[in-house]
Amino acid sequence: MADRLPKQSEDFPGWYVEVVKRAELAEHGPARGSMIIRPYGFAIWENIQRALDDRFKATGHENFYFPLLIPMHLLAAEAQHVEGFKLQAAVVTQGGGETLDEPLVIRPTSEAVIWPTYARWIQSYRDLPLLYNQWCNVLRWEMRTRLFLRTSEFLWQEGHTAHATREEAWDEALRMLEVYREVAEDVLGIPVIPGRKSESERFPGADETLPIEAMMRDAKALQCGTSHFLGQNFAKAYDVKFLNPEGRQEYAWGTSWGFTTRMIGGTIMAHGDDKGLRLPPAIAPIQVVIVPIYRSDEERSAVLDVAGKLRDDLAGNGVRAKLDDRDQHRPGYKFGEWELKGVPVRVELGPRDVEAGQVVLVDRVTGDKRSVSLAEATSGMAGTLDEVQLALFEDARAYRDENTHQIDDFDSFAAGVEEKGGFWVGPWCGSPECEEKVSAATKASLRVLPLEREDPRGPCIVCGKPGTERAIWARAY
Amino acid sequence: MADRLPKQSEDFPGWYVEVVKRAELAEHGPARGSMIIRPYGFAIWENIQRALDDRFKATGHENFYFPLLIPMHLLAAEAQHVEGFKLQAAVVTQGGGETLDEPLVIRPTSEAVIWPTYARWIQSYRDLPLLYNQWCNVLRWEMRTRLFLRTSEFLWQEGHTAHATREEAWDEALRMLEVYREVAEDVLGIPVIPGRKSESERFPGADETLPIEAMMRDAKALQCGTSHFLGQNFAKAYDVKFLNPEGRQEYAWGTSWGFTTRMIGGTIMAHGDDKGLRLPPAIAPIQVVIVPIYRSDEERSAVLDVAGKLRDDLAGNGVRAKLDDRDQHRPGYKFGEWELKGVPVRVELGPRDVEAGQVVLVDRVTGDKRSVSLAEATSGMAGTLDEVQLALFEDARAYRDENTHQIDDFDSFAAGVEEKGGFWVGPWCGSPECEEKVSAATKASLRVLPLEREDPRGPCIVCGKPGTERAIWARAY
Repeated sequence: MADRLPKQSEDFPGWYVEVVKRAELAEHGPARGSMIIRPYGFAIWENIQRALDDRFKATGHENFYFPLLIPMHLLAAEAQHVEGFKLQAAVVTQGGGETLDEPLVIRPTSEAVIWPTYARWIQSYRDLPLLYNQWCNVLRWEMRTRLFLRTSEFLWQEGHTAHATREEAWDEALRMLEVYREVAEDVLGIPVIPGRKSESERFPGADETLPIEAMMRDAKALQCGTSHFLGQNFAKAYDVKFLNPEGRQEYAWGTSWGFTTRMIGGTIMAHGDDKGLRLPPAIAPIQVVIVPIYRSDEERSAVLDVAGKLRDDLAGNGVRAKLDDRDQHRPGYKFGEWELKGVPVRVELGPRDVEAGQVVLVDRVTGDKRSVSLAEATSGMAGTLDEVQLALFEDARAYRDENTHQIDDFDSFAAGVEEKGGFWVGPWCGSPECEEKVSAATKASLRVLPLEREDPRGPCIVCGKPGTERAIWARAY
Repeated sequence: MADRLPKQSEDFPGWYVEVVKRAELAEHGPARGSMIIRPYGFAIWENIQRALDDRFKATGHENFYFPLLIPMHLLAAEAQHVEGFKLQAAVVTQGGGETLDEPLVIRPTSEAVIWPTYARWIQSYRDLPLLYNQWCNVLRWEMRTRLFLRTSEFLWQEGHTAHATREEAWDEALRMLEVYREVAEDVLGIPVIPGRKSESERFPGADETLPIEAMMRDAKALQCGTSHFLGQNFAKAYDVKFLNPEGRQEYAWGTSWGFTTRMIGGTIMAHGDDKGLRLPPAIAPIQVVIVPIYRSDEERSAVLDVAGKLRDDLAGNGVRAKLDDRDQHRPGYKFGEWELKGVPVRVELGPRDVEAGQVVLVDRVTGDKRSVSLAEATSGMAGTLDEVQLALFEDARAYRDENTHQIDDFDSFAAGVEEKGGFWVGPWCGSPECEEKVSAATKASLRVLPLEREDPRGPCIVCGKPGTERAIWARAY
């Protein structure tokens, strides 16, 4: 830890790589494109999982588990789907020492194994809706890998629901988009824009893809979770029919929705600063670290007594607190390490504090220091953590607002996005040709069309024909 | 559900298959050897996971995640290990549309990818111990599959720890064996015998394999979880050395330990009866089902009012309660369905009960019925569930004791195990040759050598040479 981190403003990608490594979040695995998620990184994921899973269950979903390996012919049944995923497939051709008759694909996503099963589970409208989810690993072969953001194997949840009507399925897709928005904003502290993807950015096999889109601290966009309205596409591909109350056969309507370990990367890039991570308390593995300060053995004993009791009291109040009582490191070293690791609140406790019955609280977001009584440190900690959580969100929102621009004309947009990144909002005519022209000229993509179509307030920035709505463009991960 | 289940006493394997299917626990997936774990089955697994994970964390372990795919050369580094797993390997030979330079094996277990990484993480004795675990899927190619008990892909946790001394590693292996014993007995309600495996049954690469061994209700044995003392084998294979306090390089000592979805099958077979599942309350997705009884709409409304309130009160007390208010089925049908699904306690509630302010409780283990006041149904339910939990354990223990036999001589043992199965306990000289003779002659294997070596009390049942300890033999899954 002798070297400083690269500065975000000078080398954001270098900063990211170093933070992931030094904070012991993840590293590359031996197989190309693979990732080892280290315990500190995985503990963040466990907290994200709990936040999502609780909400899935509160909205009536149950978990199940479908197999890792999908026979090739099943993947091929939905034409767009196989087209979208075949170049990313990892294929098992040998099993038990023999060459397989039919190759098996490691799931890139599980529609192709779940929908054929739904065909057996669904007979009547009484069997609907099916509201299911699974937590698992998936694999999409990648050439250019980046820890958390782009790896061949990643962890995620994938929800798969089936419904009797278009309206019900659409409502479900919106409901889960709202769950994602809530987790992104209230748990990860990342402000997001929920909306629709353009046709070119849709999930292969979906009629509509609904993302939540965020801005990272290098003014680039990150897609943070997606909910897909599948229409009847998979029901038709896998023959999923049901008898409706009127006694007629109909195809079921579907949704799928996913949230991945990529969002650990999103959290790093949405909140981190030049000192390292800044973790939202809601997902921080350690919310409060207590660093004792002493010189003599006598001081050490007195300070550790009080510090240990404070840790126990905080734990009793449901706060994830750690006492860093390592003897081989000085307090200054520990401060730096826990700042790097993004612990939201540091408690400093020395002999004079013990005498005065107080501690010093240091907030990772603002760096503010204040002395409070021991009793207040315990009783007020939940409130302090809430303040840090909110401060991170507000900070990220202010950054996003500063870096969101209205498009006046195409040239200043192209120059602006090249110079300073950010979100660029302007009228679009809705044609894929204009979308492609923007991407080719600016390397920005159409990130999101707000859920509620806004008045375009002008002609399309590309072709000059009447705009149909306002689109948000950005360079993205 | 018109047909009756096969009787356990007449066709135990047929009974098992039908229970798994009718209780909607699992079904076969499209790829050979694969399994779909349905929501009701997966909810059982989630409860088992929580029981284990809480105990892992309470004993100082953290979770992490290692990649699914292991380059072939890494698997090959530990000679016994690759020998043990190569015939079960599923091999990825194509990725991203191209043939890979080096094939990748889907993990059958993760020592071969974790220990090379431990070589980087471990430098000094100060880095030890490493106490880590992961929850994941693994794959071991299988010809004869059986849902939960033997499938190519299964879910499990695998703990992987590294230590500075032999003693510490051995203590860890024993500690985790004790965690498994506690979860098997106190959570799954299955009495187990913790002990050692003979050399022939050891995990490939382990110096000692410690199982917990249980008896199913067909008097066959099931291995229910294993903790391995790895000695320095993997440290030597992957060059995991550390500087000890005296400044010398030493190889680290290791353990690994696993508990799998197989135990859902174990729970079915240890407790089920001719009516179906009997689930231990600690892992039952639904602990209490409330079945309303009514004839008229008026009765229905009065009964459902009270039933709904009871469900909410039970939920408020932390009881997983369900109100089965389906209109299209009669109470008798519902009774049968929830008995099949093994719900520990049924509450029956009709118009007369409403008037009298009482309900009828029916216990799934004994079938006993009793009327209690509504207030008592709420306040006393936790106690009732504890009684059911204990009754299942005692029932399984009594069954095991009845079916455990002391071996007098080889011939009566061979005849007895053929006729009635069960555990057979007798003196063994410790030689692999005698062990093999028993297996060849009886199809029984040496299941477990009790942790505390017992006085053999006689000569080896095979060769007649002095016994060294008492061994437990059985036919097994």
